[in-house]
Amino acid sequence: MTSTPAGRLRRTVALACRILANAGLASDILGHVSVRAGADTLLIRCRGPREEGLLFTTEQDIHLVGLDGGDQPLDGWSAPAELPIHTEVLKARPDVDAVLHAHPPGVLLAGLGDVPLRPVFGAYNIPAARLALDGVPVYPRSVLVRRPELGREVVAAMGSAPVCVLRGHGIVTVGSGEHAVEQAVVRALNLEVLAGLGLELARLGRPVADLPPEDVAELPDLGSAFNDLQIWRHQLARLRLAGLGLPETED
Amino acid sequence: MTSTPAGRLRRTVALACRILANAGLASDILGHVSVRAGADTLLIRCRGPREEGLLFTTEQDIHLVGLDGGDQPLDGWSAPAELPIHTEVLKARPDVDAVLHAHPPGVLLAGLGDVPLRPVFGAYNIPAARLALDGVPVYPRSVLVRRPELGREVVAAMGSAPVCVLRGHGIVTVGSGEHAVEQAVVRALNLEVLAGLGLELARLGRPVADLPPEDVAELPDLGSAFNDLQIWRHQLARLRLAGLGLPETED
Amino acid sequence: MTSTPAGRLRRTVALACRILANAGLASDILGHVSVRAGADTLLIRCRGPREEGLLFTTEQDIHLVGLDGGDQPLDGWSAPAELPIHTEVLKARPDVDAVLHAHPPGVLLAGLGDVPLRPVFGAYNIPAARLALDGVPVYPRSVLVRRPELGREVVAAMGSAPVCVLRGHGIVTVGSGEHAVEQAVVRALNLEVLAGLGLELARLGRPVADLPPEDVAELPDLGSAFNDLQIWRHQLARLRLAGLGLPETED
Amino acid sequence: MTSTPAGRLRRTVALACRILANAGLASDILGHVSVRAGADTLLIRCRGPREEGLLFTTEQDIHLVGLDGGDQPLDGWSAPAELPIHTEVLKARPDVDAVLHAHPPGVLLAGLGDVPLRPVFGAYNIPAARLALDGVPVYPRSVLVRRPELGREVVAAMGSAPVCVLRGHGIVTVGSGEHAVEQAVVRALNLEVLAGLGLELARLGRPVADLPPEDVAELPDLGSAFNDLQIWRHQLARLRLAGLGLPETED
Repeated sequence: MTSTPAGRLRRTVALACRILANAGLASDILGHVSVRAGADTLLIRCRGPREEGLLFTTEQDIHLVGLDGGDQPLDGWSAPAELPIHTEVLKARPDVDAVLHAHPPGVLLAGLGDVPLRPVFGAYNIPAARLALDGVPVYPRSVLVRRPELGREVVAAMGSAPVCVLRGHGIVTVGSGEHAVEQAVVRALNLEVLAGLGLELARLGRPVADLPPEDVAELPDLGSAFNDLQIWRHQLARLRLAGLGLPETED
Repeated sequence: MTSTPAGRLRRTVALACRILANAGLASDILGHVSVRAGADTLLIRCRGPREEGLLFTTEQDIHLVGLDGGDQPLDGWSAPAELPIHTEVLKARPDVDAVLHAHPPGVLLAGLGDVPLRPVFGAYNIPAARLALDGVPVYPRSVLVRRPELGREVVAAMGSAPVCVLRGHGIVTVGSGEHAVEQAVVRALNLEVLAGLGLELARLGRPVADLPPEDVAELPDLGSAFNDLQIWRHQLARLRLAGLGLPETED
Repeated sequence: MTSTPAGRLRRTVALACRILANAGLASDILGHVSVRAGADTLLIRCRGPREEGLLFTTEQDIHLVGLDGGDQPLDGWSAPAELPIHTEVLKARPDVDAVLHAHPPGVLLAGLGDVPLRPVFGAYNIPAARLALDGVPVYPRSVLVRRPELGREVVAAMGSAPVCVLRGHGIVTVGSGEHAVEQAVVRALNLEVLAGLGLELARLGRPVADLPPEDVAELPDLGSAFNDLQIWRHQLARLRLAGLGLPETED
Repeated sequence: MTSTPAGRLRRTVALACRILANAGLASDILGHVSVRAGADTLLIRCRGPREEGLLFTTEQDIHLVGLDGGDQPLDGWSAPAELPIHTEVLKARPDVDAVLHAHPPGVLLAGLGDVPLRPVFGAYNIPAARLALDGVPVYPRSVLVRRPELGREVVAAMGSAPVCVLRGHGIVTVGSGEHAVEQAVVRALNLEVLAGLGLELARLGRPVADLPPEDVAELPDLGSAFNDLQIWRHQLARLRLAGLGLPETED
């Protein structure tokens, strides 16, 4: 199954779920990742009859669903209640190929505590600093996004940004292109880094100034695709070390 | 032994103890779980001659005890000193089938520091938010509950709630029905999530408003039994990953 | 070697060092445990030519040393620079049979930050609460205790207590009787629990009242020896789980 | 390859990278270690076509580069963008034989929050206390040090110190002599200890006085080389325990 394009996408989505959980961004059964599979379809992480949580996602948990919410999976699997997060983002943004929803604890706390996500550091993590420089939009309601109109509220709050905080709830990140899933995962990891640093500084109670422009100018954009794949491979290696790699396939 | 109903309950109680310890809610030898086994009996986690702590509980540690405190286990095992927590709750509440007592560090700290457990988040964890919406009762004394009258003090403080904080001590949670033990475990996990978030917000020193009613209305009750079993399986998978699964039996 | 009394003591001291490290009370190569071996001798953890830190202590690291500091080990092992902690305590207190020195991070911080170790909780951990009720003495200098007169300063600060905080440095705990080493280890673990809770409450910035006498009266002394051995076995099981057990011997 | 001097240096540099990552000082793919290999060359950790992060560094990732930045590695490996950190330090300081750059989170936070690194403790960790006594220089810009002139700014800020904080970015540490790499690693570990303690005390909000001179006088310099090798072996043992040791070679 993996050697077909759809099979490879299934595997990538399953690994993305495991990475999120292994990195602490998804604590048990909540969160899901999807990828555009055709003009009117997406592949998305579903829950099956033996659901064990994101850390133990398998390729069998990834199913094809219609962008209109139809074509629900069979055999005891069901699409997430929050499928509208995925379908509404994919319908509204043709540039987006992957959508990720998770509940990282740092972003949750920063959102609840109104801790700003500011560009106070530089070369420590340039992509995370760039997220902060560009600004991180916030959807203020902590509702379950299980209806299309709520999904459209999220889309409106997110605008054209690559990430969005769902206050009291979690995050949405997106990716584009051949490595859309990998990009969405790295953005989620970086958003949590940003929140974690913001929280630590808030606990210290010391306001920190944003980077001055002359230092921002020395933070080159090293290219997302290359960086993302290196981080992705690092996370895959951590999965293997933890005994959580997916079995190898023939491709 | 496991293939009988009592055998299966023993196994479930033993796994519950391992899950509590693996999730950080029981640090060493303190804490116990029980389940109603008949009209006048319960199965409860006891300590034996080679006691190694909750993380290493086996089915042999689970013994039948009378609701009146009689019929103590033999062969070197002894019922917990705090058996009255279990017997008094089970006697006072016919709807309850399982009782759990543990010492989660977050709840302990929140209790000592008078950190309120408020519904400040929503879809991040709906069952935990619902616990907060319903209110979490507190038993104010940090005594060892080793006499029936102290157990009845706990019962009185708890009322008809599914959980109770024992200030300076730990928690009691209960469950009902076919999956009573699993339900009590998930409630304990969620109570610790609630306390952990409350503590983090208290450290930030920023008061956070409760969810507005229109957002609470978008937090559907997805059904405890189904959700609890998924979380339970997740925790079992984490036990196996940690090398802490119980050996498989024939059933 | 293990089947002789001295062999068994060596094994117990080596396991004590591993437990301290595995529980986070000794971060790398600093800390040591000793036990009285005769009228004028002690067995103590030494450093050898292939020293790898407390977590990897073997029975070969435990050597016989004279209470007068003579009879240093051979073959490339050397007694700790802070041997006077052990020899001065053992000479001054005939009731003491084991001495432990470690650098637990919680106690270090509580000491530096003047965070009091108060009996604010009860049944959460009765032995730790009792340590606080009895008061924890503090030696105020963070010097290296490498001369006998500095060891005697520690002895004087400690008085007849079972534990002592060395401010800016670490702790000393002692044990007595057949399971002296195990008792000293459990006291060290409990002292760190006490410090950790004190620190968390200090971070919350909320003063917490001591337990009222009527609640203290409901915290029975369940007997140190029995409790200590159960905690010890739990810690041994954690070592085995981490792949850190010592190879079995014939006894 | 390992049995030659250059092979042994490659192995040592690779292990240094793994140790930094395993100890939490390098979270994924950022950070590098180098060692002087000749009059005009250094061996440095590079990124290859299958880069998986510092925790998974192999000897094949360590390549020879010219001090002038020429002689870049072949076969898909590339030297770090921040090579000028290494080349400028090595050119300016003939006493230095190894250079380490990492992003430890504690130092990052202490730098951003202006938390001072003060000698407030003693025998807890004498080498870390000595770092604080000597003063830790700070380079204030969080730029990517990818041009020689930025490298020279770092060199100027560092002066003759063994360590330097790059504010909003990370650290540079150096080592000298036969065990230069090991020394640079231990200095990095100690700098993070120092920052971690400073942060904890800042969170408690309690100013702590520096050690008095009479206690500093009782903190002997036990000799760097001996201490560093013991810590190094400890970290190697932790790598092996985590399943992260490099395969043994014939030497």
